[in-house]
Amino acid sequence: MTITAEQVKQLREMTGAGMMECKKALGETSGDLEKAVDVLRKSGIAKAATRADRAASQGRIEAYIHDARIGVLIEVNCETDFVARTDDFIRLCKDLGMQAAAANAEFVRREEVPAERVQRERDIYAAQLAAEGKPANMIDKITEGKLNKFYSEICLMEQPFIKDDKQTIDQLVKTASSKTGENIVVRRFARFKLGAE
Amino acid sequence: MTITAEQVKQLREMTGAGMMECKKALGETSGDLEKAVDVLRKSGIAKAATRADRAASQGRIEAYIHDARIGVLIEVNCETDFVARTDDFIRLCKDLGMQAAAANAEFVRREEVPAERVQRERDIYAAQLAAEGKPANMIDKITEGKLNKFYSEICLMEQPFIKDDKQTIDQLVKTASSKTGENIVVRRFARFKLGAE
Repeated sequence: MTITAEQVKQLREMTGAGMMECKKALGETSGDLEKAVDVLRKSGIAKAATRADRAASQGRIEAYIHDARIGVLIEVNCETDFVARTDDFIRLCKDLGMQAAAANAEFVRREEVPAERVQRERDIYAAQLAAEGKPANMIDKITEGKLNKFYSEICLMEQPFIKDDKQTIDQLVKTASSKTGENIVVRRFARFKLGAE
Repeated sequence: MTITAEQVKQLREMTGAGMMECKKALGETSGDLEKAVDVLRKSGIAKAATRADRAASQGRIEAYIHDARIGVLIEVNCETDFVARTDDFIRLCKDLGMQAAAANAEFVRREEVPAERVQRERDIYAAQLAAEGKPANMIDKITEGKLNKFYSEICLMEQPFIKDDKQTIDQLVKTASSKTGENIVVRRFARFKLGAE
């Protein structure tokens, strides 16, 4: 079993451990990266970190342009340059760019939607439901349902994937994350429509 | 001299005049667009508008990506879809995207730089010049010079063109504008650098 320089580099990026330590750990695990992380953690060389905590600071900037009239620029982060250069990750980034362009996403996740905008939606729903004569004790519950619908329209992570609407973008990203063994984060995107705000 | 449907379309977009009126005006001017605009204005059909006033609402969204690590999305407007599809305009858009990516532009034009940022620069220059013992009556003049330098670094329109530093981006756009006979405006751009703010 040969340990490649790429594997060593990836393990170093994932753990911050030294080159020789990474090479040794990979030798012990026959090249299994996740297990090598554990080896380094057990020996106290690498710090404990859940996948979600590990810094996703590598990745790709990708663009998607439709007919020169709609364009998206998107940054997707992963943990290592190694994964950033894989076909799977590149395909994911292209899909995410196309999704943001086609499905008119405004934000990456619901935490980014301004509070005033959410309040405006809430007020509209409350007025609609009151006009429909819905009982007060149901209005909160129905409002939450409507808000979730609203988020699933404007937040990229909650949208149904345009190529397979049985999964959300969040699920698509989680699947890629699980497949690569790295934390993957959609960091930001910009969407321009010709002549629009 | 045959007047093409494209010419008529372009003149309609430029003036808002009817199809037959545009065809007639183009016939009178042997297809010269700018002169046809004047014919329509003289007959009171088209509203008076300087080139700079005419709405630049067509154009292109273009992207430039360098090594998946730096990306720019840019919107460049012109007046007609006809010009937007010309090779010259497409080349201009690509050059502008590359310029914004390579030369690290932060704003399109100096009017967009926040006042606090300009004030911070002014304060630094004033302190530097005072420390250098420059006479008070020269400080204003030198500060203006330094501010112009600052703008020429962070504002796309004032940067020297990376492919020909004898002209600024503003001059490059004006030349294209003059060549196409249309008002051309760099409307906005977004620039992402992997892992940076």
